[in-house]
Amino acid sequence: MTVFMYEASVAPFRARLKSLRHILAKGEANAAERKIDPAVFLQGRLAPDMLPLVSQVRIASDHAKGATLRLSGRAPVPFADDEATFADLRQRIEKTVSLLDDFSPTEFEGSEDRDIELRLGGRDLAFKGLRYLLDFAQPNFYFHVTTAYDILRHNGVPLGKPDFFVEG
Amino acid sequence: MTVFMYEASVAPFRARLKSLRHILAKGEANAAERKIDPAVFLQGRLAPDMLPLVSQVRIASDHAKGATLRLSGRAPVPFADDEATFADLRQRIEKTVSLLDDFSPTEFEGSEDRDIELRLGGRDLAFKGLRYLLDFAQPNFYFHVTTAYDILRHNGVPLGKPDFFVEG
Repeated sequence: MTVFMYEASVAPFRARLKSLRHILAKGEANAAERKIDPAVFLQGRLAPDMLPLVSQVRIASDHAKGATLRLSGRAPVPFADDEATFADLRQRIEKTVSLLDDFSPTEFEGSEDRDIELRLGGRDLAFKGLRYLLDFAQPNFYFHVTTAYDILRHNGVPLGKPDFFVEG
Repeated sequence: MTVFMYEASVAPFRARLKSLRHILAKGEANAAERKIDPAVFLQGRLAPDMLPLVSQVRIASDHAKGATLRLSGRAPVPFADDEATFADLRQRIEKTVSLLDDFSPTEFEGSEDRDIELRLGGRDLAFKGLRYLLDFAQPNFYFHVTTAYDILRHNGVPLGKPDFFVEG
């Protein structure tokens, strides 16, 4: 039996987090090669009032973690949000991937109808699990993974679309 | 009965295409306000060897269209790829949304097991429908919608994360 809610959350989140790890590794290597302080990339932004790379990675991780914990009914697992280096971001991705690895499909049975409530930017949001995953968690997750890629791409890191699909 | 393959494709593609329409409308208005030739935004890129805004919108539309046509077993619906203005892009999004509106959930029943084959950049790809949607069509679609947003954001269009969720 296919548990769609598991298939549509755990597997794609894990796959793109691994791609993000690969993309960040290329960013780190490129900074070293060009003798650029890695902090320049880590604090890189596409606009002065947009979040920097380090935050894009944290938020992508948070959506993968938050969505799967909420849908499976597990308790929150807070992370410290204190990453300051590429190694720290790699570690955060690894912690998130380990958390995803630990889920079993049965934990997501019936989660399409689960009531999900969250507070975001001072607003209370309420969804059924299905719409929460498809209309909130997935687009948010991909938004931040893609923007992390776009920040590094804009800074001259030699990335191409295939890197978005490599699982590093 | 929830036809998950329909819910995970038609509805989220349509929602984010409408957001893209809203984002492009803000881009068009901002160009007019700042007396910038709209072509500057339409040809805007995040890196010299990355595709411009107009292509990001076309490819997002293609993934939404291609995925739903393939999963439902309908024949391809080619678009001309000749958009040159914001009005043209709006029309392309509207054509894509109309196509999505025309699907019924029953057309996607069992599509998780459908064999999907495509040729991309000289490579033959083969998937079952479930993995095609979750690991290929969805991430590609979101990649291009987000990059369209990021290009306009980088060019100073007053966009914020909530705009990614407005359906215009």
